[in-house]
Amino acid sequence: MKLLLALAVAVLSLSGVVPIQAADPLPSWNDGKAKQSIVEFVTKVTTAGSPDFVPVPERIATFDNDGCLWAEQPMYVQLQFAFDRVNALALQHPEWKETEPFASLLKGDVKGALAGGEKAMLGIVMATHAGMTTEEFERTVQEWFAKAKHPKTGRPYTEMVYQPMLELLAYLRVNGFKTFIVSGGGVEFMRPWTEKVYGIPPEQVVGSSIKTKFDIRDGKPVLVRLPEINFIDDKEGKPVGIQQHIGRRPVAAFGNSDGDLQMLQWTAAGPGVRFCLYVHHDDSDREWAYDRESHIGRLDKGLDEAKAKGWTVVSMRDDWREVYPK
Amino acid sequence: MKLLLALAVAVLSLSGVVPIQAADPLPSWNDGKAKQSIVEFVTKVTTAGSPDFVPVPERIATFDNDGCLWAEQPMYVQLQFAFDRVNALALQHPEWKETEPFASLLKGDVKGALAGGEKAMLGIVMATHAGMTTEEFERTVQEWFAKAKHPKTGRPYTEMVYQPMLELLAYLRVNGFKTFIVSGGGVEFMRPWTEKVYGIPPEQVVGSSIKTKFDIRDGKPVLVRLPEINFIDDKEGKPVGIQQHIGRRPVAAFGNSDGDLQMLQWTAAGPGVRFCLYVHHDDSDREWAYDRESHIGRLDKGLDEAKAKGWTVVSMRDDWREVYPK
Repeated sequence: MKLLLALAVAVLSLSGVVPIQAADPLPSWNDGKAKQSIVEFVTKVTTAGSPDFVPVPERIATFDNDGCLWAEQPMYVQLQFAFDRVNALALQHPEWKETEPFASLLKGDVKGALAGGEKAMLGIVMATHAGMTTEEFERTVQEWFAKAKHPKTGRPYTEMVYQPMLELLAYLRVNGFKTFIVSGGGVEFMRPWTEKVYGIPPEQVVGSSIKTKFDIRDGKPVLVRLPEINFIDDKEGKPVGIQQHIGRRPVAAFGNSDGDLQMLQWTAAGPGVRFCLYVHHDDSDREWAYDRESHIGRLDKGLDEAKAKGWTVVSMRDDWREVYPK
Repeated sequence: MKLLLALAVAVLSLSGVVPIQAADPLPSWNDGKAKQSIVEFVTKVTTAGSPDFVPVPERIATFDNDGCLWAEQPMYVQLQFAFDRVNALALQHPEWKETEPFASLLKGDVKGALAGGEKAMLGIVMATHAGMTTEEFERTVQEWFAKAKHPKTGRPYTEMVYQPMLELLAYLRVNGFKTFIVSGGGVEFMRPWTEKVYGIPPEQVVGSSIKTKFDIRDGKPVLVRLPEINFIDDKEGKPVGIQQHIGRRPVAAFGNSDGDLQMLQWTAAGPGVRFCLYVHHDDSDREWAYDRESHIGRLDKGLDEAKAKGWTVVSMRDDWREVYPK
């Protein structure tokens, strides 16, 4: 039996059916404590007979998206999408010329538009994310991503993902992990492209959402997106979203901001060996440098807690050989 | 390459690593139209080059639970759990002796307890399902299942599952399907045992839920179950739950009542070949016979729509060789 197995593996390796573990599964990671801690954790939990062994079904890993898997500067991508949609929809809404926050936005005055605080933001989100069917929204998202470019690099947003994190996702999956996104972003804004870009299927994306309603239109069942918050998957919401959606505590969690802190705390508090990692944005040359003072992706309490608890803190500057895919 | 693949498959078959399709993957199903329709559908969507071929990631199949995967008579299992919990908790609640619906329930008068309608039911559910952490609730559910017996057969509830449906779940999975439960039942009532009993992991269970709240107690993060409805995964709620949780329309859906009708409609309305199946309870000898007039698992509109649309209707009496596992 053992011989047959060995033969099978050899044949499959030749045929390329089974992913072959490269000599280095994380080539865009520089050698150092961060990379080492990842490999040590994965080795521990996947080594049969090890006291830290975790059975495959329990190998759940959760990743924040904005600032953890892709760039969140100079503005959350979904916010840029909402602004672009306001402009695209303006002709259908002549009243927006006289109504805030739309009037400012249409004049290109983002700061003025956002001066209205949470209420202004909610107005923009609902005007651009609700009122259509789920299929219509999905199409709109796909069309936007096909054209939109990052304002600094000119690359499509789906190329503003972090190459080292793509390798990490693949490395975990090859080792039997199920990888999930757990993001404050809108779940239906992510699902149209996460499978292609991250290898993460729609059913493994957890995010914020608005309510939807089942309806029959012209004899055809549809789901209509309503202008009402359903769930905010951020901060204290992340463990709640994880429990609702996954129903099992992760053994590894990856974030970059204080919005991920509760997810990391929830993960760390489980029995047995756990792995928590923060991506620290300290690379002003190749990406951005921000943490305690930033209004986007602030990492303050989380940085202190990571140090106190010995979580892995990744320096983008020192630990990453590459930032974006070539 | 082709030769290598063939060799690899041959070797793996010998070594038993790859599940070998038995001559009959559905031995508890009698030959007939129902069984034939299942096999034909699976063959169509899994045959490479077929116009009906469905790529593996899109092979999503959703199953109702009560009355579809296990018996729901003479009472929904979760209701029995709630009643048993009221009795177990009565000592801590002396006031229940004087308060409905608890007073009636404690006297064994279920009918009297439920006379208060939805409000009474909600009171019983919240008194028994909320107020503890998610971990405490999970333990309570596990302990209850370890002891509780079905009132008619005396078997543990986890043995009151349908053998033909277990075979169907396995048959779909061997053919690349991801199988989900989409039930009106409480998601945290199912997750502690679905993996062992159905081979369905917690993250593939969609159900009704109450709200939970993240909290730190004695320095330890917990999720506390609140006495507030979060989501009802029934009727119009099922397509909503599917979209929220799976984010992809199923290609096959399985139910047994009008509560599943919208899920089947939503599934059927997708492009390409789709499969919808109703389990029809018409076996008064081995199980129960009920449909249009039943207050549990009523199948009325659904039966008409199944006939009109040519969905598969399974006769438990005629199509199933066995009902429960031996």
